[in-house]
Amino acid sequence: MTARDQREFFTVKTVSEALTGFRPARRTPVETVSLHDALGRVPAESICAPHALPGFARATVDGFAVRAADTYGASEGLPSYLDLAGEARMGLPPEAEVRPGTAVAIATGAALPPGADAVLKIEHTQAATPELLEVLRPVTPGEGMVRADEDAAPAAELVRPGRPLRAQELGMLAATGITVLPVYARPRVSIVSTGDELVSSTQTTLDAGQVRDSSAPALAALVSEAGGEPRFAGIVPDDRDALATRLSDALAACDVLVVSAGSSVGARDETAAAIASLGEPGIWCHGLAFRPGKPTLLADCGGVPVIGLPGNPRSALVAFRLIGMPIVRLVGGCTHPPPEPAVRARLSRNLPSAAGRLDVVQVRLDGDHAEPLFGSSSLLSILTAAEGYVVVPEAATGLAAGSELEVTLYR
Amino acid sequence: MTARDQREFFTVKTVSEALTGFRPARRTPVETVSLHDALGRVPAESICAPHALPGFARATVDGFAVRAADTYGASEGLPSYLDLAGEARMGLPPEAEVRPGTAVAIATGAALPPGADAVLKIEHTQAATPELLEVLRPVTPGEGMVRADEDAAPAAELVRPGRPLRAQELGMLAATGITVLPVYARPRVSIVSTGDELVSSTQTTLDAGQVRDSSAPALAALVSEAGGEPRFAGIVPDDRDALATRLSDALAACDVLVVSAGSSVGARDETAAAIASLGEPGIWCHGLAFRPGKPTLLADCGGVPVIGLPGNPRSALVAFRLIGMPIVRLVGGCTHPPPEPAVRARLSRNLPSAAGRLDVVQVRLDGDHAEPLFGSSSLLSILTAAEGYVVVPEAATGLAAGSELEVTLYR
Repeated sequence: MTARDQREFFTVKTVSEALTGFRPARRTPVETVSLHDALGRVPAESICAPHALPGFARATVDGFAVRAADTYGASEGLPSYLDLAGEARMGLPPEAEVRPGTAVAIATGAALPPGADAVLKIEHTQAATPELLEVLRPVTPGEGMVRADEDAAPAAELVRPGRPLRAQELGMLAATGITVLPVYARPRVSIVSTGDELVSSTQTTLDAGQVRDSSAPALAALVSEAGGEPRFAGIVPDDRDALATRLSDALAACDVLVVSAGSSVGARDETAAAIASLGEPGIWCHGLAFRPGKPTLLADCGGVPVIGLPGNPRSALVAFRLIGMPIVRLVGGCTHPPPEPAVRARLSRNLPSAAGRLDVVQVRLDGDHAEPLFGSSSLLSILTAAEGYVVVPEAATGLAAGSELEVTLYR
Repeated sequence: MTARDQREFFTVKTVSEALTGFRPARRTPVETVSLHDALGRVPAESICAPHALPGFARATVDGFAVRAADTYGASEGLPSYLDLAGEARMGLPPEAEVRPGTAVAIATGAALPPGADAVLKIEHTQAATPELLEVLRPVTPGEGMVRADEDAAPAAELVRPGRPLRAQELGMLAATGITVLPVYARPRVSIVSTGDELVSSTQTTLDAGQVRDSSAPALAALVSEAGGEPRFAGIVPDDRDALATRLSDALAACDVLVVSAGSSVGARDETAAAIASLGEPGIWCHGLAFRPGKPTLLADCGGVPVIGLPGNPRSALVAFRLIGMPIVRLVGGCTHPPPEPAVRARLSRNLPSAAGRLDVVQVRLDGDHAEPLFGSSSLLSILTAAEGYVVVPEAATGLAAGSELEVTLYR
């Protein structure tokens, strides 16, 4: 590390240290949502079945409800005969009872009549007369049906806290009549952009040297992907006081504060100083040992996690995906994040890296080959050309061409 | 195939046949969305850069804009000397010019002054006097900077139609000042539930034999996941005329119609007849060769794709994921769906299957082992217990314990 690096980065941490060590205690409040709006939301508590599911024994085939013992020994050559004693109607309480020597016609899904302990498939029967059923195969008790508590026993856990809800959990909740549930509110994530060169993306013509703020809209999308609610808190020049004022205002009304910092060293110094003024305990690390994105800053300002991102758009997006999205998820109560798409691929060329530093390398896929994309970390086109990225871990000093590795894919 | 199967399923197709052969031509209309609402939306056309990006040559390091030729041969032992000719200010047009033998101070991101063709890192310089710069290493032209069109050339394609927008594309569009864009409208997907036994999930107490409609809310979630807009069109008894009326009303106001059918053979026959009455060309297949979900029906009724799902909740969800979600995506213009999360795992036990039939088997993961979950296709708990599923392809007659296979993970 050069003298300048030491001046610039006081407390560099590795990505692993940050992911395990910087774990904000903050959680969003709990709110109630309707089942119809609950996909992907994070349950705030365990939800248990209020009663057994399906709640009554049901046929799972079309056929005849019987006492299994009455069918023992039946075969095509030597059928058993049962008296037909009516029909179990779908959605209605059973009218008939299955007594020894009788059978009741039943459709898939209907409630088993009292006395029955199995359902004989229609294919394994034959009508002898309108009142008499020929049984061509035996059934064992429990066959062709589900028990009253087979889908869920009373008080069984249907949903566990911390795992975003999937379609099947919503189905299960609907089956038990639970139509509203407690979830963590979406974290309010404020994004402040800083940089003397930045103007809004809505500005149609640019003066020389100006660039539109591309990071904020892209970061907002990543916030949404992590279950948060992005809020744009505007663009501030690289001025410590102006920045401190804007950050302090934003901090009061958010759960996570993101500062998309100016790109020059001077601008980064201003940002760090402004963040340091926001509250205790303050800056947790200033510098993360990964590329591209070393000038990433993490702070806890009065209980609000603050993420200072590098000024280069590509670095900012990579850093936010790596370290920001997990923080947004955690604050939103998500302790079991959904899996990321990934494929195995072979590296098409050598990837050099330094030990102790994690490298995030964008790749394009060509069949089962991963082709690394290189270029300045100011270029967003590296990210738009990429289908995914590979991580060269901290311990590695590079990866050889031909190595098989995991490519995390963008959705 | 038994005689009953032949009666029940007139035109059974394989899943591959359905995925390649049943490709509705219908597309939703194009609408305009703001960039802030565009994540995951499907662009309706190619969007090209209106001008070069970044638009001007920019420094990518903090240092000094120079003429590279002026630094050739410089070393720590034998430095070159350049006259300092001012500073390039961030966000402002360059004031100074770099003439032979001079250097202009510049910060990362600032516009390169005229005459400069490289940026020398500050670390590779030393101030000799306030007006004189000592150059300790040479640079080559293009070093420490990006060209005016390096992120995008004018008219370069930034976004291609049919691929849901990712965070990085939104950043790129913002950089070019494109803040609204044409996307396919979300497909309106109406869900009609049928079954004499079904009641709404909002019904608090059930009579004997009644079950709450668990499929519709879960299907609605899958519709949202596929980019569609679910609409509940209610619960209809297993009555052909009532069903035909409801379906016909729903058809008039949707882009895809989903019928979550009654579970008994009789109910399925009623559903098929009602769908057949909706319009030409009508039923494309009645029966798909996969388990669980054979009684899946596909139809084109006057240009609206209609998907008739099995009555068992698990079968309905598996069938909709397999065949319904691709249809919703296609109607919504999505020709390049985002990748699904997946892992490689070893099968913990043998999986029997029949040749010519595709099996979708739910699995729980235990380390790198995939443990198949078996049980009646009426049980939703098989799906809530699963982390993902494996597919036993049509050509296979089963998979052996220990086989390595791909598990598609639920999000």
